[in-house]
Amino acid sequence: MKGNEALAEAAIRAGCKCFFGYPITPQTELSEYLSKQMPKRGGVFLQAESEVAAINMVLGAGGTGTRVMTSSSSPGISLKSEGISYIAGSDVPCLIVNVERGGPGLGSIQPSQQDYWQATKGLGHGDFRLIILAPNSVQEVVNLVVRAFDLAEKYRMPVMLLSDGLLGQMMEPVEFPEISAKTADNSGWAACGTKMQREHHIVNSLYIEANDLEAQVKKRYERYAVIEENESDAETYLCDDADIVITAFGACSRIAKSAVNKARAEGIKAGLFRPVTLWPFPKKQLLAATKNAKAVLSVEMNMGQMIDDVKLALDCRIPVEFTGRTGGVIPSPNEVLAKLREMNGGAQ
Amino acid sequence: MKGNEALAEAAIRAGCKCFFGYPITPQTELSEYLSKQMPKRGGVFLQAESEVAAINMVLGAGGTGTRVMTSSSSPGISLKSEGISYIAGSDVPCLIVNVERGGPGLGSIQPSQQDYWQATKGLGHGDFRLIILAPNSVQEVVNLVVRAFDLAEKYRMPVMLLSDGLLGQMMEPVEFPEISAKTADNSGWAACGTKMQREHHIVNSLYIEANDLEAQVKKRYERYAVIEENESDAETYLCDDADIVITAFGACSRIAKSAVNKARAEGIKAGLFRPVTLWPFPKKQLLAATKNAKAVLSVEMNMGQMIDDVKLALDCRIPVEFTGRTGGVIPSPNEVLAKLREMNGGAQ
Amino acid sequence: MKGNEALAEAAIRAGCKCFFGYPITPQTELSEYLSKQMPKRGGVFLQAESEVAAINMVLGAGGTGTRVMTSSSSPGISLKSEGISYIAGSDVPCLIVNVERGGPGLGSIQPSQQDYWQATKGLGHGDFRLIILAPNSVQEVVNLVVRAFDLAEKYRMPVMLLSDGLLGQMMEPVEFPEISAKTADNSGWAACGTKMQREHHIVNSLYIEANDLEAQVKKRYERYAVIEENESDAETYLCDDADIVITAFGACSRIAKSAVNKARAEGIKAGLFRPVTLWPFPKKQLLAATKNAKAVLSVEMNMGQMIDDVKLALDCRIPVEFTGRTGGVIPSPNEVLAKLREMNGGAQ
Amino acid sequence: MKGNEALAEAAIRAGCKCFFGYPITPQTELSEYLSKQMPKRGGVFLQAESEVAAINMVLGAGGTGTRVMTSSSSPGISLKSEGISYIAGSDVPCLIVNVERGGPGLGSIQPSQQDYWQATKGLGHGDFRLIILAPNSVQEVVNLVVRAFDLAEKYRMPVMLLSDGLLGQMMEPVEFPEISAKTADNSGWAACGTKMQREHHIVNSLYIEANDLEAQVKKRYERYAVIEENESDAETYLCDDADIVITAFGACSRIAKSAVNKARAEGIKAGLFRPVTLWPFPKKQLLAATKNAKAVLSVEMNMGQMIDDVKLALDCRIPVEFTGRTGGVIPSPNEVLAKLREMNGGAQ
Repeated sequence: MKGNEALAEAAIRAGCKCFFGYPITPQTELSEYLSKQMPKRGGVFLQAESEVAAINMVLGAGGTGTRVMTSSSSPGISLKSEGISYIAGSDVPCLIVNVERGGPGLGSIQPSQQDYWQATKGLGHGDFRLIILAPNSVQEVVNLVVRAFDLAEKYRMPVMLLSDGLLGQMMEPVEFPEISAKTADNSGWAACGTKMQREHHIVNSLYIEANDLEAQVKKRYERYAVIEENESDAETYLCDDADIVITAFGACSRIAKSAVNKARAEGIKAGLFRPVTLWPFPKKQLLAATKNAKAVLSVEMNMGQMIDDVKLALDCRIPVEFTGRTGGVIPSPNEVLAKLREMNGGAQ
Repeated sequence: MKGNEALAEAAIRAGCKCFFGYPITPQTELSEYLSKQMPKRGGVFLQAESEVAAINMVLGAGGTGTRVMTSSSSPGISLKSEGISYIAGSDVPCLIVNVERGGPGLGSIQPSQQDYWQATKGLGHGDFRLIILAPNSVQEVVNLVVRAFDLAEKYRMPVMLLSDGLLGQMMEPVEFPEISAKTADNSGWAACGTKMQREHHIVNSLYIEANDLEAQVKKRYERYAVIEENESDAETYLCDDADIVITAFGACSRIAKSAVNKARAEGIKAGLFRPVTLWPFPKKQLLAATKNAKAVLSVEMNMGQMIDDVKLALDCRIPVEFTGRTGGVIPSPNEVLAKLREMNGGAQ
Repeated sequence: MKGNEALAEAAIRAGCKCFFGYPITPQTELSEYLSKQMPKRGGVFLQAESEVAAINMVLGAGGTGTRVMTSSSSPGISLKSEGISYIAGSDVPCLIVNVERGGPGLGSIQPSQQDYWQATKGLGHGDFRLIILAPNSVQEVVNLVVRAFDLAEKYRMPVMLLSDGLLGQMMEPVEFPEISAKTADNSGWAACGTKMQREHHIVNSLYIEANDLEAQVKKRYERYAVIEENESDAETYLCDDADIVITAFGACSRIAKSAVNKARAEGIKAGLFRPVTLWPFPKKQLLAATKNAKAVLSVEMNMGQMIDDVKLALDCRIPVEFTGRTGGVIPSPNEVLAKLREMNGGAQ
Repeated sequence: MKGNEALAEAAIRAGCKCFFGYPITPQTELSEYLSKQMPKRGGVFLQAESEVAAINMVLGAGGTGTRVMTSSSSPGISLKSEGISYIAGSDVPCLIVNVERGGPGLGSIQPSQQDYWQATKGLGHGDFRLIILAPNSVQEVVNLVVRAFDLAEKYRMPVMLLSDGLLGQMMEPVEFPEISAKTADNSGWAACGTKMQREHHIVNSLYIEANDLEAQVKKRYERYAVIEENESDAETYLCDDADIVITAFGACSRIAKSAVNKARAEGIKAGLFRPVTLWPFPKKQLLAATKNAKAVLSVEMNMGQMIDDVKLALDCRIPVEFTGRTGGVIPSPNEVLAKLREMNGGAQ
């Protein structure tokens, strides 16, 4: 199954009832799949008039407590950033998928990881966070979609699944776990009809008084602290004795893994640390994985964005270097290996 | 003169010929002033159908080599983020003003600095930067507007002036420097008419081939490196012997300065480091200003955003703490002083 | 039941599966009712981003052979006129409701019949017609909604139900007839999925060759001729011996009927001719109803629009006068009576 | 000079200061010409985000008393119909050009006269009129543009110049008359700035009270009566002794004239009556021109629309027949001649 299609199928199985989107390459298969399946399986598929319309529909439908999602690719996510800030400021759960492509601007339609900063720090105005999940296989896409909906409802916030053109197009065997599709009980806050038996629920991001707004933001940051404590996730590979630990996420981590294997074959003690959650960034896990390392290499399909979070997580304790390609170019294992060799020379 | 009006007047004097915007509090006086003055002084004022329309008009007009600007406040800037990415990807100079207000979402209309991350890292998809200028007085607003246009043309990129509701509404005496309004010679790249005497100039952000796009991005990052080398700017106050250096920008730095004075009166050796350019972040200057410091305190009108850049600039050499208010609440000098006292106790 | 609500209920019973609209007074109860009922009864209610979006959704959904409707009030119908022309040019059946209010422009929100010309002659560019049905009671609203859907599918064209604020707000007892909701078999033309077993159906209004377009228009006018022959409908009241026949439609005809009764009480031989179909205009019926009349009086809630069709139907054989009110003012029976007296004096 | 370009040049000479439009075939040359010339000659050319945006800009700019215009082709005019109703309801002068093409829907891009009804009766909701001018040569395009602006300001209403693809593309020599470009004094009503020396002028179409709205509409219809009395215009050709008078307007009248000449050569006493103003329809002139005629033939590039106005003007006194082509097909003189022969046989 293609990554994009597996993602769509997983969303339906996870109880997603509404999809609002606007067509853009390379996420097309995802919405195409949903356009066919949603009506047959009790859901709504709606191709909106624009990216802006789509994200506001997510806000509206999500505000009723329904499991809801949208998907787009980089330029479309930018257009959605006002709406995403509104969703975060309204404490509305939803799933947002970004199948990244090369930028900035219209850019290219090849895979990229150039939206790391936008996703983890700047997805709209105001203080807020999204949980950012970064799968690196079609099977993990499926698993993380389910987790995304659960986390969104658990913490009443938007969750982004950060995919890319490579993962979206990749075909791999996939198994759909028994999914309960049991959504949380949203009846305590959702605007789902009073039946004249309770006060209206207000789902809103407007606060006339700055003190009220500050109080809301602080309450939200208390939840963020819980998330940072409990929900960070990462995978490690050969890190225990590694001199050099590569940090890489998403599709790019597969290339990094090949490079690690090649390096090991040459006697270079390399390892791989793969954040599964980009926010919360898995600091504790990284500290543990690098306890014996002399250096870290951040491999990204951009000009170097995650490297800042790596440095901050490590408190700048050991050197962190960067290698990567951008604009839709995928780095090769050999390019990464070359950088490892260079660092290994320097590190010994 | 009010900060917003001084900004507008400075833009006209700096040779800005086109303004495209959409009304939003608290930047209203700015566009109101331009709506009256632009037509009388040979310029164009256009209230567009939406924030999205406005930023795309900036792309179009800026692409002809004309000095052009837009302004908005936080939610409007989010809506503009796709267009900003296109402008950056098309190497088009322009001035974008963000008179920040409380967020996320609709938020409040009180002053805020919650868009620091968005401005410095996530203003749209793809690898790119804006030069971000952060004045802290009406006079500096005027000076930086002129510099903003010059930098935009010098490096062919969007420049953002990051103001806030406090600075926008503040009334202070202001002097307009002799401004040459001499715009750069844009005839080498701008789409300003071939007169049938040269090839068409293409102003565009689309690259079908990922390698071509990567080459463009890398060329742009070479310019970014030059900017980081030459254009960073900061102001220091009593830093030489300071045990604790406060970092603060914009309106918030004025509160921090009061706190420094109060602290000094109590014998606490505090100083103030104020970045004028948020990107490029003034790393060298900060290193120099903190060479004797034992700790740094980042004071921000948000939940702590610039603090990451401070830590990275310092290579995590000394502890960096945070205090701030959010959602439109302005911290008081005494709140900052209290934090200084606490840190001073801890630092000795 | 209110007229607007009865209309909505009738539409659901008639098998309408999709409603796309945008809120505007005085049609609000209609969409409000559908927003609650549609999801419960297997239909789709969608509040679109704009009137323009809504009518294009009608084109899209109607093109699949689904029973589909929209409703609006005067300004919204103007915005929809491009889409209505596309629907007519694509031979797509649908129901469009116009709950007229006072115009032009923003106008008033009181009842009006000022859109007669627009409905019968100018609802968009190009040669085309809509069947226009004009009920004058809540019960007839119900009956005509069912007929509207049937006619739309029988002739593959848009049908408009021309209501007004008076009829929309009026409460009357209503009986819902046994409705089969048996939609026509649209599988011969609708774009409802080929299942890989037939050629694609094209639902479109574009013809590059003028000759092809002309052929389409002429074919459509052949159908229009059949409709004019078979589908015109009118109600008469005391016309047989009438000296003066009033022509009036919709809510206005009820006032005219009161005036006829008052006139008869005074010995003035007045009658009422009420077109139920405004297009096709019931010419034959009007000729029959006026065979003994000396004059006709067109009573309208506008400045005199249907009067032209009355004159043309009569081939200008007898004088046709006009009385009416506009801008949302409802004429009183006494005003009409006064005009009848004046004409009666003149006619004898 | 091409008709479209001559139209544009005449508009500038007539003092038009603002053009707002959106590109559509076959009116492209018109806006292209203005895009180049307006900025050089002290005017504003603005390509708006949509047809709807463009017409609302016309309302805004026209409301300041500035000479302003827009142009489009059939589908675009439909989209503008809400705005046109607002302009009429706000008593704002402006020029609207419709370079008609084949419809309905997307239709064809060949010349057509299918928007006669829309232009003269249904250009939006509510009771209102536009003055409709229909030139039949490039020179007359120029002359009528000047007249259009003058009439618009004299009567404070929108004026439409109804052209078509044939006239727009036609090249003919043209002379620009000495044009004073003296606009009317609009200071008595326009929203052009109070300078704190008078009450605000309100330019608006909203009336909460139906009686107020009716009063406005009636006042407007008093002006319409003056226009019908004084501004109707027509050209006659060989009508004095004609048995059959052709009625035809715009480009189509040139074909009709050829047919008249051919008919006369055969001894058929044909003449041509060409309305220059479609509203007000030149009734008196038509009555005079047909005083000796036995029949009238309406020749149109549509399915028969003006024929109703011809019948009504003649009070159905003599038979009125129709011939024409539609969908972008231009009738040939021989087709018209054939119909004349047939009628001549029947009339004798």
